[in-house]
Amino acid sequence: MVTTLSQARLGIVGLGLMGGSLGLALRSTRACRAVIGTDANAEVCRQAVALGVVDLALDDAAAVVCQCDIIVLAAPVRAIIRLAGELGALLPPGSVLMDLGSTKDDIMRAMAGLPEHVQVIGGHPMCGKESAGIAAADAGLFRGAVFCLTPLPRTDAATVSLAGELVRALGAHPLVIDSARHDRLVGAISHLPYLMAAALATTAAGTAGADALAWQLAASGFRDTSRLAASDVDMMLDVLLTNRATVAALARDAAAHLEDLAAAVERGDDGGLRRALGAAREARHQAYAHPPAKT
Amino acid sequence: MVTTLSQARLGIVGLGLMGGSLGLALRSTRACRAVIGTDANAEVCRQAVALGVVDLALDDAAAVVCQCDIIVLAAPVRAIIRLAGELGALLPPGSVLMDLGSTKDDIMRAMAGLPEHVQVIGGHPMCGKESAGIAAADAGLFRGAVFCLTPLPRTDAATVSLAGELVRALGAHPLVIDSARHDRLVGAISHLPYLMAAALATTAAGTAGADALAWQLAASGFRDTSRLAASDVDMMLDVLLTNRATVAALARDAAAHLEDLAAAVERGDDGGLRRALGAAREARHQAYAHPPAKT
Repeated sequence: MVTTLSQARLGIVGLGLMGGSLGLALRSTRACRAVIGTDANAEVCRQAVALGVVDLALDDAAAVVCQCDIIVLAAPVRAIIRLAGELGALLPPGSVLMDLGSTKDDIMRAMAGLPEHVQVIGGHPMCGKESAGIAAADAGLFRGAVFCLTPLPRTDAATVSLAGELVRALGAHPLVIDSARHDRLVGAISHLPYLMAAALATTAAGTAGADALAWQLAASGFRDTSRLAASDVDMMLDVLLTNRATVAALARDAAAHLEDLAAAVERGDDGGLRRALGAAREARHQAYAHPPAKT
Repeated sequence: MVTTLSQARLGIVGLGLMGGSLGLALRSTRACRAVIGTDANAEVCRQAVALGVVDLALDDAAAVVCQCDIIVLAAPVRAIIRLAGELGALLPPGSVLMDLGSTKDDIMRAMAGLPEHVQVIGGHPMCGKESAGIAAADAGLFRGAVFCLTPLPRTDAATVSLAGELVRALGAHPLVIDSARHDRLVGAISHLPYLMAAALATTAAGTAGADALAWQLAASGFRDTSRLAASDVDMMLDVLLTNRATVAALARDAAAHLEDLAAAVERGDDGGLRRALGAAREARHQAYAHPPAKT
């Protein structure tokens, strides 16, 4: 296997926002020997070459992955799980399979079933955009972000090191973490915020449906709090449905907090509200007591 | 009474973020004959003069309001209601009393009780910051924002016109609206987002309490969705407790949507989730189908 990134032919499977941004970032710093892309959509392959996202792109994934040293699956989570199964047998001995999926535990279970001569490691960059597709690809997308790496017990140290090198080449900060722990934590700080934004947008639409003037009064508070509701639904469905128990429990917790706040508002409980809202404010400050890696 | 802003001596009661920003904005364009401030805290009065927020400031509100043509109450909602009662009898005949409170119906009920020789009109600029206090005052705070004006049936046309002139002098867009309708709409697009952010911060803190790594994984999604949880608690308490029925009903609606989403995630209901999240995405797009006045 290759031991440094600069020697590697790197294949990207799926040329959407994340895969496209990965290609742009790696090519802009000439971090790899070559960056080769594949996407089921031939038009996207042509666009990827035209945009300089990859050196070469083919719509035949099998033809690409059998020639690469590092293969990165950049697709919604359930597509990654399917691709790992389909492409696993085609990967050359000594190659490294990685992914960019937003949940990790189900993916790592799928990767555990791949041939022993393939090294596997999960990846999840903590960044994104509401816009999807290769046209939104951005070489700076990963810069400053925490980038989780989730090895399996069978993953060797050289692979963890190579993945770390890849992450640093993107301007991101590698964080090695167990996949189950990863999924618990991103449930709270990523999947729950999405559901809160969706519930807010749905509820506000109820008011605006009766009186369209509502939207004209919406200022930066509504805009920011509801922003994630505009996320790509296909991608988020995969995320939620591969982290079901955690997400459901968190959404129920948040609903219970909202019910408590509603009851305190209704009965005019000044003291109770002050304590609850003060604690929420304190929690929000705690979250940023240490500056986050990407703001 | 004065009929144009440029002739008016304008008094600001309460020199915090909003009152301070109002003074800065009016003085920067010399929109009034004079801008006089008052705050119960003498040190804040000194600071206001030093920062150029007002021409003159006194900690004696009665001494200020009896000399002014337009008086703007810039305080939390329940303080505005108290001030309207305390200062109402001191206002000169023909003067105009206005306010900047975030809910309007309770305030307008209090203003309705003032002497007939005082003109009254409510005001609510749809903008703000998490930071409070005069040090955060910003002459551009109102620029581009929708600024609601809530007259009473007894408010004369000249007063509505003068208030509109004041709003435009700030670079904001006046919107005349009934106070009860205002409170229903801002419940959905301002008060509910605050409660969603608070419930999110509280729930995420539960996860982070067990594993502090959670905050390190928080990216822009969590930051934006939870931002309003950092709002000033005193100010928000007044807002929530003067819009109780609307806010409680909306928070319960949102909690019910969250419960539904949790149940759909738990049972792996791909189709149901796709419909619900697609509708939320569509609602979010609807909100911004016409660009908001301030983004």
